Amino acid sequence: METKKKIMLTGDRPTGRLHIGHYVGSLRQRVEIQNSGEYDEIFVMLADAQALTDNFDDPEKVRESVMQCAIDYLSIGIDPEKTNIFIQSEVPQLHELTVYYMNLVTVARVQRNPTVKNEIKLRNFEANIPVGFFTYPISQASDITAFKATIVPVGEDQEPMLEQCREIVRKFNYTYGKDVLVEPEIYLPPNKACLRLPGTDGQAKMSKSLGNTIYLSDPEDVLKKKVMSMFTDPNHLRVEDPGSLEGNTVFTYLDAFCSDEDFDKYLPEYKNLDELKAHYQRGGLGDVKVKKFLFKVLNDFLAPIREKRAYYEAHPEEVIEAITKGTMAARAKAEETLRDVKEAMKIDYFEKWEKDYGVRYDK
Amino acid sequence: METKKKIMLTGDRPTGRLHIGHYVGSLRQRVEIQNSGEYDEIFVMLADAQALTDNFDDPEKVRESVMQCAIDYLSIGIDPEKTNIFIQSEVPQLHELTVYYMNLVTVARVQRNPTVKNEIKLRNFEANIPVGFFTYPISQASDITAFKATIVPVGEDQEPMLEQCREIVRKFNYTYGKDVLVEPEIYLPPNKACLRLPGTDGQAKMSKSLGNTIYLSDPEDVLKKKVMSMFTDPNHLRVEDPGSLEGNTVFTYLDAFCSDEDFDKYLPEYKNLDELKAHYQRGGLGDVKVKKFLFKVLNDFLAPIREKRAYYEAHPEEVIEAITKGTMAARAKAEETLRDVKEAMKIDYFEKWEKDYGVRYDK
Repeated sequence: METKKKIMLTGDRPTGRLHIGHYVGSLRQRVEIQNSGEYDEIFVMLADAQALTDNFDDPEKVRESVMQCAIDYLSIGIDPEKTNIFIQSEVPQLHELTVYYMNLVTVARVQRNPTVKNEIKLRNFEANIPVGFFTYPISQASDITAFKATIVPVGEDQEPMLEQCREIVRKFNYTYGKDVLVEPEIYLPPNKACLRLPGTDGQAKMSKSLGNTIYLSDPEDVLKKKVMSMFTDPNHLRVEDPGSLEGNTVFTYLDAFCSDEDFDKYLPEYKNLDELKAHYQRGGLGDVKVKKFLFKVLNDFLAPIREKRAYYEAHPEEVIEAITKGTMAARAKAEETLRDVKEAMKIDYFEKWEKDYGVRYDK
Repeated sequence: METKKKIMLTGDRPTGRLHIGHYVGSLRQRVEIQNSGEYDEIFVMLADAQALTDNFDDPEKVRESVMQCAIDYLSIGIDPEKTNIFIQSEVPQLHELTVYYMNLVTVARVQRNPTVKNEIKLRNFEANIPVGFFTYPISQASDITAFKATIVPVGEDQEPMLEQCREIVRKFNYTYGKDVLVEPEIYLPPNKACLRLPGTDGQAKMSKSLGNTIYLSDPEDVLKKKVMSMFTDPNHLRVEDPGSLEGNTVFTYLDAFCSDEDFDKYLPEYKNLDELKAHYQRGGLGDVKVKKFLFKVLNDFLAPIREKRAYYEAHPEEVIEAITKGTMAARAKAEETLRDVKEAMKIDYFEKWEKDYGVRYDK
């Protein structure tokens, strides 16, 4: 029996630079997966076409973000020799698949998709949903199936999107009588490795518009300012008061970033984070001291990323080369799937004619 | 000032062979337009992708019809040297345009389109409309604008589709700050040249499912049988009775097809159709005589078409050559438009990088 290839697809909507929330939530994991050697093929998509569905009137932002995200990827350790970084709009096969999958999904089915419902609410679209945004579960199914991805690492809130994708796969294979498309599985990280990092102001999510993010590209002084003004325990007014860890953003960030070595280096009076937390809860530990420690930890984490970023900003041709290489690989793979899809749908006219009549044409 | 090119786009959904209703309603006109020499470019689309939106589970029918429609075109005088006959699904640029235009149209706007409403009703889709069918006005806008068509000959019932297309053109050009796309105009035929031919049973429309059509490919014996059993005046029971022309299908067909020469040849006792009609209304003229005359007229019309059809059926490679030539021309034109569209939308990454950094890539 043929062993099924392990193929991963993931990506980001390029609507701004990436921040440490992205790192903790997905980027760190991607690098680990990439370096695990367990996957046969890995594709990371710069989803510009998807970003344009609700940013169609600001294409300059999307274009600029494509380059910045690619630099972020390379700076955190995505290796273009192992991972295909590609631009969605430069793989036109994805759009062809979308158009054909649209025949297999009813309007009512998309309307019932809880993720779509939620995203529409988030954006206050209501009656004015652009058709492109409304149909993005179908477009996502194209992205996934074009690469015959077996594994897609997404948050659990995206599971309905994956289910819709699997429905399309099953309906396609059933309708056209061939197992052309592959059902993807969700990748759930081992233990709670992938956290959702709150904003620096304590709000649930980092977001550019709320101004509560720490970017992977933030310089040291910006980082310091952001950390020193972070949200902690609003009732922890005097150093000697007991402090609470619940919703205390500084400690959530430490959970995500610090290691025992950081204590050796910067706070040798504590063995580890547990001891620091205990002291904070007892009282007698001031926020400023904890924030200074967090700043050092984050700065150590960001320093090499900043350095690599500076290098790539000075060498855009290397970034472009990485994207070009990945995009060409993505095109080749998607073209293969599209050829199978069109053959199954009996719209492979030229290939059929060549077979039946020996008539060739120059592409 | 640059004179605007005159470009025409038209086409058919390949879901069966073409019949004399298509001929009277549009094909005859296309040949006249083609031979008028007034148009700079003419594109005739075999809209297989559109046909698949509501025939996705019967792709064999669509594929077979593509070939049959192309043979019909060539047999009635569409000249591949003057008209580009192309297959929609073989011009993938159309799908890319569709995906980008979907961002410019809201779901509510499509729902309000009267033609869409009507088509949904006709097909009993209601809640189960495939997304691909729902969005076909957007796909049609791609077909029209890809070729920068200035003129689209469609029935007046299709005017709302054209209006939606013009809205997309205006929104695109406004949003992206460039006059990339061209607003199409509807082509209204001079006087009532384009009739809608009723079915042979007197129903308003010819339709395969009703079995009331006369195909361009019908052989002589089939034609005779169909004409001799046509619907006339149900109250015209005896030859001597006065007959009515109202809803009398045989006379409607004569209106569309016969000429004074046909009377010289087959019914010299009448000078023209007016005289024949007068006699029928007065009484004393039997249906059989009129039907026999109509059969001869239609047979004279179909004989050369049948002959050409037989030739192309024996020489499929010539049909394929014509389609291939037209499809390549359509691709080149659509690619040009797509390039302009992507440049305006700032998603022409590789071109931009080549300009900015001198980085080239092999397509």
